[in-house]
Parts: sequence; C-alpha cells; structure tokens
Amino acid sequence: MFVTFLSDYGRSDDFVGVCHGVIARIAPEARVIDLTHDVPRHDVRRAAVILRRALQYCPAGVHLVVVDPGVGGTRRAVAARVAEEDRILIGPDNGVLWPAAERFGGVIEAVDLMHSPHRLEPVSATFHGRDVFAPVAAHLAAGAALGAAGEPIDPDDLVKLRLPTPYVEAERVYAHVVSTDTFGNVALDVTHEEGTAAGLRLGNSVRVNGTPATYARTFEDVGPGELMLYEDAYRTLALAVNRGSAQEFLDLAPDDEVQIEP
Amino acid sequence: MFVTFLSDYGRSDDFVGVCHGVIARIAPEARVIDLTHDVPRHDVRRAAVILRRALQYCPAGVHLVVVDPGVGGTRRAVAARVAEEDRILIGPDNGVLWPAAERFGGVIEAVDLMHSPHRLEPVSATFHGRDVFAPVAAHLAAGAALGAAGEPIDPDDLVKLRLPTPYVEAERVYAHVVSTDTFGNVALDVTHEEGTAAGLRLGNSVRVNGTPATYARTFEDVGPGELMLYEDAYRTLALAVNRGSAQEFLDLAPDDEVQIEP
Amino acid sequence: MFVTFLSDYGRSDDFVGVCHGVIARIAPEARVIDLTHDVPRHDVRRAAVILRRALQYCPAGVHLVVVDPGVGGTRRAVAARVAEEDRILIGPDNGVLWPAAERFGGVIEAVDLMHSPHRLEPVSATFHGRDVFAPVAAHLAAGAALGAAGEPIDPDDLVKLRLPTPYVEAERVYAHVVSTDTFGNVALDVTHEEGTAAGLRLGNSVRVNGTPATYARTFEDVGPGELMLYEDAYRTLALAVNRGSAQEFLDLAPDDEVQIEP
Repeated sequence: MFVTFLSDYGRSDDFVGVCHGVIARIAPEARVIDLTHDVPRHDVRRAAVILRRALQYCPAGVHLVVVDPGVGGTRRAVAARVAEEDRILIGPDNGVLWPAAERFGGVIEAVDLMHSPHRLEPVSATFHGRDVFAPVAAHLAAGAALGAAGEPIDPDDLVKLRLPTPYVEAERVYAHVVSTDTFGNVALDVTHEEGTAAGLRLGNSVRVNGTPATYARTFEDVGPGELMLYEDAYRTLALAVNRGSAQEFLDLAPDDEVQIEP
Repeated sequence: MFVTFLSDYGRSDDFVGVCHGVIARIAPEARVIDLTHDVPRHDVRRAAVILRRALQYCPAGVHLVVVDPGVGGTRRAVAARVAEEDRILIGPDNGVLWPAAERFGGVIEAVDLMHSPHRLEPVSATFHGRDVFAPVAAHLAAGAALGAAGEPIDPDDLVKLRLPTPYVEAERVYAHVVSTDTFGNVALDVTHEEGTAAGLRLGNSVRVNGTPATYARTFEDVGPGELMLYEDAYRTLALAVNRGSAQEFLDLAPDDEVQIEP
Repeated sequence: MFVTFLSDYGRSDDFVGVCHGVIARIAPEARVIDLTHDVPRHDVRRAAVILRRALQYCPAGVHLVVVDPGVGGTRRAVAARVAEEDRILIGPDNGVLWPAAERFGGVIEAVDLMHSPHRLEPVSATFHGRDVFAPVAAHLAAGAALGAAGEPIDPDDLVKLRLPTPYVEAERVYAHVVSTDTFGNVALDVTHEEGTAAGLRLGNSVRVNGTPATYARTFEDVGPGELMLYEDAYRTLALAVNRGSAQEFLDLAPDDEVQIEP
C-alpha cells in the first residue's frame, strides 16, 4: 500500500524523516511517496492545489497532507474516503483536502481523528504530523478500517476551500492565478477550450493584463525573455517567460485576476 | 531491515543518492529512511541532538550518521550497538553518536571500521560516507555480524559529546538552547516539571531573558508576533513567536543560556 | 528492479513526487533512488557529469535523467542500453546520457520514445518527465522489452556531449573544471598519475593558476582558508579550500582551464 505525503515541513529539520519513521514502525510494508515538503509555510491553498493536481498520477492509497497553521487549536484532524477509486485523504480539517476530494467525487465517509486510538500518546500540541496524522495513515495503509480510526462525522461538515471562478466573454477571458512553480511559470484556471471561446488562437498574439504575448505551444516558440501563453501539463492555460519568470515579469500572486484578450 | 540516514551532505550534489546506491547494491532489501541531510555543514552537535530525539520514533535497525569534519584525518569510524532495542549506530567517532547511545542505555559493543572488510576499496580520503559508512551499514542491515565489521574497541573509549546542564532555582530556570528549527522555534533543555519547580505556571506571564512572554499551550494562545514558552513535541520547554521566529527575536544560538522567571 | 532518477526539477514543486507516483502506478515493485533533483536548471553538462560518476555505485537497472531545456521542441526522447552490465539509460537526446554510456562501453541498442506505447496520453508539451520518461522507465523496470518501448534508432545518431581534454607537459598540467559541489570543491579532469608525470609530488607545494597551494591528502593537511590540490573521491585531482570554497577562491566555472605547476 502506498502513502503519499505532502507538507510544509521543509527538509532542513527531521520532521519529515520522523514521520517516515513512525509510518515504518507501524506499517513496515507501506511505501511512502513524498509529493513535496516545500509548500510555503501555512499555505493551505497551495497545498490544496498541489494535492488536487497530483493525486490522479499517484497510486490509490492513503494520501497524507500536513499543512496545518491551526495545529494545537480547535481545528479537527480528519480522514476522509472519496467516492471514486480507493483513496483516503488524511489531514487537518482546514480545507486542504477539499479540492482533491471534489475531483474524486466528493467525500463519502469521514472520521474525526482527535481521539483516534491510533494516535501516539501523549499527543504533543505542535507536532500532529508525528503524533496523529502519520500513525493514522500507517494504520490505514496496513489495513485498519477507516471507521475504527476515529469518530464518524458528516462529510458535509468538512471545511470547504473554494477557488475563484473564471469568466469568459466574447473577446476577453477573466482567469485567475492558481499557482506558480519554482521556474516562475504561472498556472491559470481556464482551459484551451474556454480561451478559444473568447477568440484566442494558438500561434497568434494575445494581450495578458495589457502586455503583448504569444499563444504558443512550447517554450521554444518564443525568444528568450518573451512572454507566452500556453496549455500546460495539467490541461489548463499558463504563462511563462522563456528562460525567465512570468510570475516576476507580471508581478502575480495566487488568486490574482488575469485578463487575456486576443 | 531499516537504515536511517542523517548527514550534512545537502541534496544539491549526488552524495546522498550515491550512498543510497551503495546500500541498494549490497542490501537490495534494506529500506532507507532519510532523517535529514540539511544539518548545517560540520555541525556535529546539532546532528547529535537530532539523532537523539528522532531515534525513538524510528524502527530499530541500523542508524547511519555522516557529519564528519575530520574525514580523512585520524578520527575513527565506528559502529556501536546500544543496550536497549536492537539498534546499531554508525558514524565518525566524534561524539555525534553519543547522546543517542546514552538514551538507549549506552554502548555495549563497538568496532573500529577503518579497516573494515566491508569497505569499498580503494577508500577515498574524502568520501567515507560512500566508501566506509554506507557499505558497512548495508552489510549490517543485510545481517552481517557487528563483530565482523571491524576491530573491537572499548565502548568507554568512544568520544563523548556532553551538552550543558540546566539549573533550577526557586524563582528562576537557567536553561540552554538545544536547537532551533526552520521556523525559528527554539528548543530548551528543561522540562515542564522543572519549570513548575521554579514557579512557572501554564497560562501565566513569564520573563525570558527579561522579555515578557506567555507560558502557553499552543501557538494560537498568543497573538501574531508574540513570544511564547511552551512544552514542545519532544516534552521539553521551547520558545516560539506566533508566525515569527523566536530565534531571531531573542538572537539565540545553540548552548546559549536562557533565564526564565515567573 | 531499481530506477535511479536525476533531474533539475528541484523539490519545491511536486514534479519529482508526481514522477514517483507515475512509476509506482505502473511498476509498484520498482524502487526509486533519487540521485539529486537540484541540478542547476537546464545544466545538461552537469547532469551528464553526475550521471557518469554516480552510476558505478548504483545497482544495474533503469537510469532516468530529466534535464531537458528542449522539452516540447524537436529533440528526441530516447532509451539506450549500454554494452556493460544490464543498464538502460533514459532521457532527452541532448547529450546528457552520453558520458555515462561511454563509461559502460557505449550504446548497443537505442529507441526513440516520442511515440512510445508507454506514454501517458495525451502527452503534455512541457512535462515529459511525467508523460514520457517516467512511464517508459517504469515499464522497462517492470520487465518490458526495450525494443517495444519505441522506434529503433542507430546508436551512432545519438547526440554526443564531449568534455574538454586535459594536456600534460613535463612541468605543467592543463586541466579543466569538471564540476563544483555545494562545498565549493572543484573537480578536475586529470588523475594523480598524470600529475605525477608532470612533476607534481604529494606533500609538496604546487601552483594553481599561479596561486600557491599544497598537494595534500586530506583537508586536515592544510590550515583553514588554505588552497589544496588532492585526489578526490572519484580518483581525479580536485581543488579545495579547507573550510572554504576553492570555486570562489579561484573564480572557476565548468570547462575553465586550470594550469598546475610543481
């Protein structure tokens, strides 16, 4: 059984390694796939976007997320089974699991883990990755029943995280920044088909927040330093600067609106 | 069999990957858990603290540490079995293994690895992780006897690393900085019980090196930017600034004395 | 079966994690060894050097490299079997595989992967690690035949990456910078034997681009801040500054010529 693991712990400390150790003690046969641990600290939104995008490429199993600004407070810790495929999402109930759950048909069963029998006692106030989330993930990966991992809760009561909605007019697309990557490429929330409906044509010039760009297929279609619009690896439109950073070039942040015109 | 691996190699080069490769060639069934490879370069003390704290959460097995400012010099390379649980520690004999060994009852058997039959010949002067430590760890993980890995040495002859000792008065605790993490949280070397003996009360105000702080349970008990004292995930007191860095706020370094008053 | 994985994806995004996920879905028994993912972006030469050096320490298997400035353009994607040991190299056909292939007797069978039946459809224009290279690596690791992974191509048609050639005179070595590591150590392309032929003697003084240095065995043979020449862990000469950076000290970049005199 595979466990995917996504967090904002970074790799400079032993937080991630200790969680791996906890999982290995409980479920020595489980295999852990680190999605990334360099989510910006406390950036629940970004972790939610990464999880939503990554899960379809990962084997079904247990999907552990620890981006948890409210650790030790009153937020719940939850495990949630989704409707499609045999996947269980585990993490704080702060919305981080929601967009991924939606993509797999929504949550059909959920439990509150705060008094889970799988916890490592005594539970610390600040390191629930080690004391709550990792041990629960390990027990579930080893075959324990979801219903035995905590108190049942109504899936409708889970915290929802909703992203902005794009809007398409005849000659203009109102998109939003979903995320930016290390290279400064900026993912948007509209598809090629929506762009076409607004009159964008592959190979033509477009304007992005008033700045000229090319609607291109690959980085090699524009010169170094030039802005391009393209369909990215996740099937939505994105912005890049060949050998540069579109994020810096246009000074964009997550959720910012981006207007694109033919 | 599990091998935990802790080093200051960083991840920018292929040092860690090559050590994984060496282990996989010798012990293809062994599973490696990376604790962290971002220990500050040559920081033996910090690696010793991380190992001491992390080991109890990891499965028993072989515990490999390569933080080794004296590589190629006269320092010994050692493997040491501890008294409690079936754990073998491997690393340079510079004290890095000592605090962890103490926590597991001390060393009951040790060997000098400098002429180990498990070495990769010819041994380089500068990359003992690959040529000495990783292959020895792999052979031990694959079931080789500790006694056959090198020349026996007296456990009492191992280099010891001793940390400062805290001191508690009626109205004052003299603690020390054990370590700081990526988030700027500062771990101290006194327990909640020792704090209570000095008159510290959970929920009350305290003074930390003269600066007002709150003895709180979680980050949410203080406002953003405020200093707090709390019991951390390792059961000792620690300092944090909510959504900030206590290490920067108080300008603290490892082993610094920290005076706490009610 | 082991898959080694080398890229410039970094670890801040989920690119590496998603490729692990893709491999796990197709070949759940395969074990992935991350060599490093922090190759400087688009630095084909550096990745080629790392692969050439690291492979001999890794178990035979599938060796995946994704450093791919031409992704989405006309460059080929290839898988290549080498003459010695049972190793298959996979990556873009930009030379990155070439120096490693040469070290293992050259390529004896190669296929073009651009229309591989193992691809994840539809193939994105920008993330061939996920859509082409990782799935092909996984299928080969799971036992699929190389010949079935793509269209056969002539090994002689693969893009070659040639490094500069060192030159040795009676009293002078003309070496070149192969690579620098995180610590600022500079690997050169001449051996101890070639140095000896030019009159360099271990333990003596030498001049490196006119700067005095010691031809030493270990970092402890020179004082802090002093420049040394030594035989490095890969059996070639290298430059270091004890507790400093030789790369910064001498302002060196890859392929720079370095003259060494007794």
